[in-house]
Amino acid sequence: MSRTSGEFELIARYFAGAARNDAVELGIGDDCALIDAGPGRQWAVTTDMLVEGVHFLSEVAPEALGHKALAVNLSDLAACGAQPRCYFLAIALPSVDETWLSDFTRGMLALGDHFGCSLAGGDTTRSREGVTISITALGEVPRGRALLRSGARAGDDLWVSGHLGDGALGLALLRDGVVLPPAERSAVIERLERPVPRVALGIALRGVARSAIDVSDGLAGDLGHILERSGVGARVEWREVPMSSALRRMPPDLQRRCVLAGGDDYELLFTADPAMRDGVLDAGRAAELAVTRIGNIVAEGGLTLIEEDGRRVDIEPRAFDHFRP
Amino acid sequence: MSRTSGEFELIARYFAGAARNDAVELGIGDDCALIDAGPGRQWAVTTDMLVEGVHFLSEVAPEALGHKALAVNLSDLAACGAQPRCYFLAIALPSVDETWLSDFTRGMLALGDHFGCSLAGGDTTRSREGVTISITALGEVPRGRALLRSGARAGDDLWVSGHLGDGALGLALLRDGVVLPPAERSAVIERLERPVPRVALGIALRGVARSAIDVSDGLAGDLGHILERSGVGARVEWREVPMSSALRRMPPDLQRRCVLAGGDDYELLFTADPAMRDGVLDAGRAAELAVTRIGNIVAEGGLTLIEEDGRRVDIEPRAFDHFRP
Repeated sequence: MSRTSGEFELIARYFAGAARNDAVELGIGDDCALIDAGPGRQWAVTTDMLVEGVHFLSEVAPEALGHKALAVNLSDLAACGAQPRCYFLAIALPSVDETWLSDFTRGMLALGDHFGCSLAGGDTTRSREGVTISITALGEVPRGRALLRSGARAGDDLWVSGHLGDGALGLALLRDGVVLPPAERSAVIERLERPVPRVALGIALRGVARSAIDVSDGLAGDLGHILERSGVGARVEWREVPMSSALRRMPPDLQRRCVLAGGDDYELLFTADPAMRDGVLDAGRAAELAVTRIGNIVAEGGLTLIEEDGRRVDIEPRAFDHFRP
Repeated sequence: MSRTSGEFELIARYFAGAARNDAVELGIGDDCALIDAGPGRQWAVTTDMLVEGVHFLSEVAPEALGHKALAVNLSDLAACGAQPRCYFLAIALPSVDETWLSDFTRGMLALGDHFGCSLAGGDTTRSREGVTISITALGEVPRGRALLRSGARAGDDLWVSGHLGDGALGLALLRDGVVLPPAERSAVIERLERPVPRVALGIALRGVARSAIDVSDGLAGDLGHILERSGVGARVEWREVPMSSALRRMPPDLQRRCVLAGGDDYELLFTADPAMRDGVLDAGRAAELAVTRIGNIVAEGGLTLIEEDGRRVDIEPRAFDHFRP
């Protein structure tokens, strides 16, 4: 359910009239909604839609597409600290290609099995053109312990898992003819096409992090969502932002674009009280994932990038917008 | 999540490998899946996808489309006897047309409000062509009391709510130039474009009906799902099948097509022990909806239509298949 600013504004404007009832314990605006699941427990629920030619290239291997279609939802659950349990698939196909469908399903089911998350239902139908996939995933979280975008406070450390920008670099390799040695090229494209949702880290960060989101639209936009929902600002030390060695060797402009406005990283971006640094490092170790402190949360709104030479640059906390020209 | 035979076979074949965990108390194959919602309660969950040019005409009023996109999901919840509580919308649009979006949302939210069912989250994105809508809806049901397709037994009465065939007749009016007087034309198109999910009837039938489904793909196909899942057959008395006066005046062939293979009726088709006839009639009165006994369930498989002259015709219990040529 991660989404970009323009889309977010769109939704905010038109869906603001939606009445709420007591089954919905957290509604529109976070990575997941929270639904009553009985005493001591909530269901975190997220929905994402992927459209051929918009979110994925037609040439992508169907097995990788099946993996990714579920992965983007599990990444939203991870950002809430939820344990994935089940999902629902709606898919529109222009025709029945049995090999394609078998490969797609294999990729999707394998990722679900890996995380103990079952396909529980769905809808298969015909499209006029191209493939459209919508998955709704449910994850369990102890009541009141979900990580939200709205929990950041001035003084929090800002952390990110893994490294950023390879998803967008992968797209640049496939689409814009950027060149890399074969081994690095494969690794980067793997990051784009088969992202691994940070489920174990999200769960380990319950009670440790104060706010979290998954990086699906680039650091600037997704951090922007935390800042907006929490009513705070942030400073990011550019030299601390973790990048792969492949991206490190790219021109600075491309690095910026891939990290700040890229997307498809599916790492977790989160804030925590500085008193919790050991707890964050423990969570990273438990999840076998690097966690890097890249800046901090400040009271004054806005997003400031601190360059390697110490210069401060205000950047717009906005993501790629599918609808912006 | 109602679906046609071809699609069903498709799903059965490729998704059979899906592992199940204990959060999923009923998986693929019914109108809804059932998910653990704490002691004494389950969530019924359903997903439907609507594609422009396949499930709705491009000319449809956006307010009616918003209504219908949610109605088809609430109808699945009704077929399970679930009380709708919340839903998630994923929508792909070729561009942002604010008037369109405002009208669409108004239709959707109004129907949700009417049934106390809240929009809890979603995803808005761009399509390359046409509108695709996927809604996942959740309804509450007391544990173990959901109405399923699989509960029919030989000897059960077969019942249907309201009348059948007007949805398909509406499509014939819009698309094939069938002519009706203006008042009847409006009423029939209203049935196609703004179906009313039979939520109160579904709830009133808990503990009264043995099996249920909503009629979204025509009587033959949807009854076929009950027969297949319950391992039984059925006899339908054609003269008992309720039709509107408008459809009654149509040629017999068109009547058959609209009722048996039409779809878009969103009435409930259900079976009940003959000892429960008073209970069924009470449920109909409570829901302010006609209920009509149209036949019965038999041990031997297959679907037999008993003509007005007493002739018996075996018909294929199959629905319209989006993928069949």
